[in-house]
Amino acid sequence: MKQITAIVQPHRLEKVEAALHHLPHFPGFTLLQGHGHPRGHGHSHAYVADEWEPSRHPCLILWIYCDDAQVDAIMQAIEQAAHTGQPGDGLVTVTEVIDIVRIRSGERGRAAV
Amino acid sequence: MKQITAIVQPHRLEKVEAALHHLPHFPGFTLLQGHGHPRGHGHSHAYVADEWEPSRHPCLILWIYCDDAQVDAIMQAIEQAAHTGQPGDGLVTVTEVIDIVRIRSGERGRAAV
Amino acid sequence: MKQITAIVQPHRLEKVEAALHHLPHFPGFTLLQGHGHPRGHGHSHAYVADEWEPSRHPCLILWIYCDDAQVDAIMQAIEQAAHTGQPGDGLVTVTEVIDIVRIRSGERGRAAV
Repeated sequence: MKQITAIVQPHRLEKVEAALHHLPHFPGFTLLQGHGHPRGHGHSHAYVADEWEPSRHPCLILWIYCDDAQVDAIMQAIEQAAHTGQPGDGLVTVTEVIDIVRIRSGERGRAAV
Repeated sequence: MKQITAIVQPHRLEKVEAALHHLPHFPGFTLLQGHGHPRGHGHSHAYVADEWEPSRHPCLILWIYCDDAQVDAIMQAIEQAAHTGQPGDGLVTVTEVIDIVRIRSGERGRAAV
Repeated sequence: MKQITAIVQPHRLEKVEAALHHLPHFPGFTLLQGHGHPRGHGHSHAYVADEWEPSRHPCLILWIYCDDAQVDAIMQAIEQAAHTGQPGDGLVTVTEVIDIVRIRSGERGRAAV
């Protein structure tokens, strides 16, 4: 199984959610709130320590647990729905999940996602 | 080392915490707040995009870093304590941790958990 | 690629951010808020279930996605900047990232971090 973590702009949540609902199997997700600090490059980068104001960079984080076979479709759905082309669009990452248990049913592994 | 991530209903936190305290070595945890979006299945699934109200689905997230040998006992403790049998009981997942450092002491790897 | 997760005291954020800015390539980060529950050891450990008050243990969580070659420098920067020597200084962990996509540009893998 895999965990997909998407960091997106708050105003794109509705589009991302709709895109996930258009998949054959809507996977469910956990939503967290955060703030993003933009990258910079080298000593001349645009953002310096005393300029960053976290409250100006809110982001939402979605965690989706899924079967390996679903990863590509879910990533593409999120990418397309979250894309504006402006800085701050965010990231989608994929990490390995060794084990997963659904607390209500006790289902484990692929049966749990 | 492993990271155990538990997504549980807020009203079960006290029971989960107590269950962890009954383990021989209480592992400590980091607690985050989030919201859950239930799964759906196919085009006839119960939840659709315009029905979901995040504030009605609060959840708590616990991160526990532990030695491989502790994983089973911690997972079982959380599962039993968080279980109500109702939808929304949440998930417990296990992921691999490559390296871990305790900032206060500089302890590294298994010594840090 | 790797994900570095740093759990630090809120009052050290400014120092951590400054330390990251002194690196040749400031990596950017995502910031989340949480609460920490201290470890305990055995049945005589210091913290018991009915003593813990989450609001007394706020913490900040930083996620940094980076190339493998950057991990050591980023970890050292965070450790030094977040260290006070007091309980609650937090942890830095490293986990593997299988895939990463930058939503704005579509850049993938090492090009995305």
